[in-house]
Amino acid sequence: MISVGIVGGTGYTGVELLRILLRHTQAQVQVLTSRTEAGKRVADMFPNLRGHTDLEFSDLDIDVLKQCDVVFFATPHGVAMQHAQALTEANTKVIDLAADFRLQNLEQFEKWYGMQHACPELLKDSVYGLSELNRDKIKQANVIGNPGCYPTTVQLGLAPVLKAAQDLIKPESIIIDAKSGVSGAGRKASLGMIYSENADNFKAYGVAGHRHHPEIVEALENISGKTGVFEHVIFIPHLVPMIRGMLSTIYVDLTEAGAQTDLQALYEQFYANEPFVDVMPAGSSPETRSVRGANQLRIALHKPHPNKLIVLSAQDNLVKGAAGQAVQNMNIMFGFAEDEGLAGIGLLP
Amino acid sequence: MISVGIVGGTGYTGVELLRILLRHTQAQVQVLTSRTEAGKRVADMFPNLRGHTDLEFSDLDIDVLKQCDVVFFATPHGVAMQHAQALTEANTKVIDLAADFRLQNLEQFEKWYGMQHACPELLKDSVYGLSELNRDKIKQANVIGNPGCYPTTVQLGLAPVLKAAQDLIKPESIIIDAKSGVSGAGRKASLGMIYSENADNFKAYGVAGHRHHPEIVEALENISGKTGVFEHVIFIPHLVPMIRGMLSTIYVDLTEAGAQTDLQALYEQFYANEPFVDVMPAGSSPETRSVRGANQLRIALHKPHPNKLIVLSAQDNLVKGAAGQAVQNMNIMFGFAEDEGLAGIGLLP
Amino acid sequence: MISVGIVGGTGYTGVELLRILLRHTQAQVQVLTSRTEAGKRVADMFPNLRGHTDLEFSDLDIDVLKQCDVVFFATPHGVAMQHAQALTEANTKVIDLAADFRLQNLEQFEKWYGMQHACPELLKDSVYGLSELNRDKIKQANVIGNPGCYPTTVQLGLAPVLKAAQDLIKPESIIIDAKSGVSGAGRKASLGMIYSENADNFKAYGVAGHRHHPEIVEALENISGKTGVFEHVIFIPHLVPMIRGMLSTIYVDLTEAGAQTDLQALYEQFYANEPFVDVMPAGSSPETRSVRGANQLRIALHKPHPNKLIVLSAQDNLVKGAAGQAVQNMNIMFGFAEDEGLAGIGLLP
Amino acid sequence: MISVGIVGGTGYTGVELLRILLRHTQAQVQVLTSRTEAGKRVADMFPNLRGHTDLEFSDLDIDVLKQCDVVFFATPHGVAMQHAQALTEANTKVIDLAADFRLQNLEQFEKWYGMQHACPELLKDSVYGLSELNRDKIKQANVIGNPGCYPTTVQLGLAPVLKAAQDLIKPESIIIDAKSGVSGAGRKASLGMIYSENADNFKAYGVAGHRHHPEIVEALENISGKTGVFEHVIFIPHLVPMIRGMLSTIYVDLTEAGAQTDLQALYEQFYANEPFVDVMPAGSSPETRSVRGANQLRIALHKPHPNKLIVLSAQDNLVKGAAGQAVQNMNIMFGFAEDEGLAGIGLLP
Repeated sequence: MISVGIVGGTGYTGVELLRILLRHTQAQVQVLTSRTEAGKRVADMFPNLRGHTDLEFSDLDIDVLKQCDVVFFATPHGVAMQHAQALTEANTKVIDLAADFRLQNLEQFEKWYGMQHACPELLKDSVYGLSELNRDKIKQANVIGNPGCYPTTVQLGLAPVLKAAQDLIKPESIIIDAKSGVSGAGRKASLGMIYSENADNFKAYGVAGHRHHPEIVEALENISGKTGVFEHVIFIPHLVPMIRGMLSTIYVDLTEAGAQTDLQALYEQFYANEPFVDVMPAGSSPETRSVRGANQLRIALHKPHPNKLIVLSAQDNLVKGAAGQAVQNMNIMFGFAEDEGLAGIGLLP
Repeated sequence: MISVGIVGGTGYTGVELLRILLRHTQAQVQVLTSRTEAGKRVADMFPNLRGHTDLEFSDLDIDVLKQCDVVFFATPHGVAMQHAQALTEANTKVIDLAADFRLQNLEQFEKWYGMQHACPELLKDSVYGLSELNRDKIKQANVIGNPGCYPTTVQLGLAPVLKAAQDLIKPESIIIDAKSGVSGAGRKASLGMIYSENADNFKAYGVAGHRHHPEIVEALENISGKTGVFEHVIFIPHLVPMIRGMLSTIYVDLTEAGAQTDLQALYEQFYANEPFVDVMPAGSSPETRSVRGANQLRIALHKPHPNKLIVLSAQDNLVKGAAGQAVQNMNIMFGFAEDEGLAGIGLLP
Repeated sequence: MISVGIVGGTGYTGVELLRILLRHTQAQVQVLTSRTEAGKRVADMFPNLRGHTDLEFSDLDIDVLKQCDVVFFATPHGVAMQHAQALTEANTKVIDLAADFRLQNLEQFEKWYGMQHACPELLKDSVYGLSELNRDKIKQANVIGNPGCYPTTVQLGLAPVLKAAQDLIKPESIIIDAKSGVSGAGRKASLGMIYSENADNFKAYGVAGHRHHPEIVEALENISGKTGVFEHVIFIPHLVPMIRGMLSTIYVDLTEAGAQTDLQALYEQFYANEPFVDVMPAGSSPETRSVRGANQLRIALHKPHPNKLIVLSAQDNLVKGAAGQAVQNMNIMFGFAEDEGLAGIGLLP
Repeated sequence: MISVGIVGGTGYTGVELLRILLRHTQAQVQVLTSRTEAGKRVADMFPNLRGHTDLEFSDLDIDVLKQCDVVFFATPHGVAMQHAQALTEANTKVIDLAADFRLQNLEQFEKWYGMQHACPELLKDSVYGLSELNRDKIKQANVIGNPGCYPTTVQLGLAPVLKAAQDLIKPESIIIDAKSGVSGAGRKASLGMIYSENADNFKAYGVAGHRHHPEIVEALENISGKTGVFEHVIFIPHLVPMIRGMLSTIYVDLTEAGAQTDLQALYEQFYANEPFVDVMPAGSSPETRSVRGANQLRIALHKPHPNKLIVLSAQDNLVKGAAGQAVQNMNIMFGFAEDEGLAGIGLLP
């Protein structure tokens, strides 16, 4: 049994971490901090937790956190990097659900997040926590940058073609038309997020540029081993009037080799041993509700023409896109069964 | 053609007033003020208005407002009472959509709204704008207190039995189980109102006491001419995951006389000439969507037992429950056809 | 490990049973039947189950079902009573999620369900499966009539006052204003249930009479030991535009004794050892989302006046109101830990 | 005042036609037919119409319809073509909201709609009712094929570049990622359309092929005057959990000439005199709610790179995408003001 700390448990990734970890047989949440809610019982804020925990929010005390085996940061961008060094020096592992350890490119980080990185050296040693693709490095990691939700759908959606021996797709052709439920924007008192502004409505947002774009570019470079070819990837996110769920519709031009490859077989083989990635049969359409509350990502492929591939990639943005993948990474780091705490089935209807 | 001012047009009652008044053939909105948005085009805030108006928000200038024939206050409670005196002295009529002129009881006003009334004398002369019940007084009024949304459903739902020659109901038995869409809470950046906190959820709220309770009590007293018997009226509002719509389910014990009265006939006769109140056939169930966007209230009666009456009373909280009724009152005050600007049919589906 | 059969797994209670039982450590679903879908993989119908089961629907074969330790009927009313006798004779226990074994009153059953009961003798021996109230009988039962969703909220909401030594409430005063998500109506291709007819809408339904009324009456009689006083209980269900969730707002007049009792303490004590019933602190308002997907019912009490009690009673209609309670009953019948398979935390947001 | 017939008024386009036409000052609905509902008052089916019309459904009687000046077909595909000849011979104009007169290519019609065309000669004389692009022909037309909802967003979204003097885009590069509210699927009792299957969910559908694809191809050919280059247009529709609203996100590669053109100016100029098409400022994101219930389509342009154009094109699928455009065509055909009956402002929130 390991001891766990959570910094910043007042957002949706925080309550999801608790929902999952309170049922984990090998980990126990010992500390839960909040800048603003110290002294409050977490179940008074999140009524689903009533009867399941007596945890109270406390002030962030680094000495207390150092006694944990692992600390999750479910905080705004820029918090984890202030504390990660101290924690790793105390042999406490760090999993950041914000962006502090997602981008190796410091310039991009500063451009998109408007702050200087606090520990560039530690960043270099950190591991990008896309569990299925970086499992070996995650095992050894002290600091994990947990991927953004959109980038998770894109990476798992394109990894099989990007990692193939031959060039199967034309990287400059990638268009990602992405759609997310409203919880992806977090738990914030903002006019744009209130019910009556979002229900029965659909729109694109972040059209001029979204922070997940540089993360996607860097990730695709890392996966493919190619640089300089993904800058023009198009990424347009849209807001869906639903709480949870994310679907990326990814359009790619195939090379001659790609057109002649059995991509369905390629994908099925690539993910054959992955419990959390489901390659659906040809002709399928993954629904976000099929993974509601579950740590799963479902993929379906379509080829409207011999030279065009469409990948549909669906997940729960708060689970496989955030808290679930974070716990999956913890399981890998500590040698637990990878699905420990994550075996729940999606809630449908 | 009269000239209209709107103070505080950044909330949902503000945009509804504009939607209605921009299509009114006898009234023209000349001024639209906002404390915070002066200089901004209203169509940039409310995209449904793009192409329909070039109006800009301006600072509140009482001298400009005095040149209007009527000024609507779509402001928080406590604003209209600061300016009403000056306006009426300039022969400008005032219609307040907040609570400043709803309660004649000053003690109750101070208790529930936490402020002293700024113009108690003017309050005495003001008229409570429940159009169907106070039409004659509204014609002569200089200041209108536009009713709260819940109180509108209750008053129109009970007026026929309260105004009957005989005592038909037992006033102390009244239970109002009320349900509202989220827009009733206004357009505010508050955590409790964000999409992910309200969608796919249902709850009671304001259980310990709601500002509309004293308004309901005072209104029922005025309608019935009885005092001291409505204090114990039960009023429990609930929040429905929908944008617009309000349904009150009202439970009443009937007197002997009430049990022997043909209440369906009574209601139909009472509202026979009212274009905006629809008494549905026995056995009906009014749906909120049937009045979405329309200045209409629909009523259905049920008698599960000879001594029990259930009134179902449905409206669009932003229209008949707010902006629509306010324009209806303006039409009455200025002698326009009462349905001018208000003849739109509900949007279904 | 016991073997489980499910008859009629194509509805929402069927898929919920599977979601729960596929994670149960002591029970294994061996058979899943459907009149119409034999040969189809259940995961092809319910995509949340993909990767979690290879079960296929089969035709109902009573000899196969007899080899199960327990059979759940997630069928329309009238199916379980055709097969229950044969199963119990083979020592297979039966849990019916429909109404066949809910009402002991045969006249009422025939009146409301339009069919004669097929096995009145077995009905007499069957046990009404409100787990918390009938635990001892459930332990011994061969046939369980799993309660209706609305009746569950009412019974658990009123049991403490009904079972008190003194008369605390006036039974003829009970008014139940109930609200349910749309999944309560099942999974049926009907015009009234399509998305565009239900979204952004609110209405009462079944106002002229609802099948759960006689069940509520009989249950309140059984709990209180009083007959002839609950016939006039008012029960008005409403439809909420949400998938899951149910809230009953129950209004009761208190007797003199009731007015002087500490009801909060009474309820807390009554449910002190019940893991699935949560008596919230005074002043609370249970939200349906707090129990989304969880086998829990939350209660809050309010006393607007000394003589009036309001009980708010919330659950997930598909879990504590149906499939969850059915598994809870199975756990009781077979001596498993009562929360086995049911320890999941509600999904919020 | 012209007299209007509506055939098949029991679907959502039917009730929308009524909502609009009952407020039209130059047209009066005289006949409303339904195969299944003859004798029923339309307001009993669509409660928003209560108090606004006494119309009853009648059986389809061609002699009665012939006395109308215009007949709208709000029927399934294949009905209008059975009656159009008889009507036009009686000088009654026909506006079909289904697909019978959308495709000139008979082979495509038979392939996608599974039936032979009943009046190919009349089809040749019919006019495709995309009002803004075909206004002159519509003026002279006897039979109008009202466009599909998706094709309307695509045509108005691409017309300015397709009709430009130079080749501005590469036609083979067009990708249309389209999203629609659920009402687009009509009012049908089907399992896939029920509330609990669609709420809080997002998915692609019709991925293998959608009937609007051939319509889009033919329309783009007609607008551009080019053939053989649009067959590989990609069109992927998605289902959004909302009632009304449609957004197409259209991705196009620009030619050298296109890259050097001021496309924002081009679009603004192209639609400068169109009351129902709104070219929003650069950087905008049209929201579907901004046109809820309104006969408007809003467009915004984005250029993520010099050679890539993204067009966002939003409308209410039931209004500009169906019934509103049909009335707009009627107005053109009869020389009424084009916005008669169509001046309503979108309902927001």
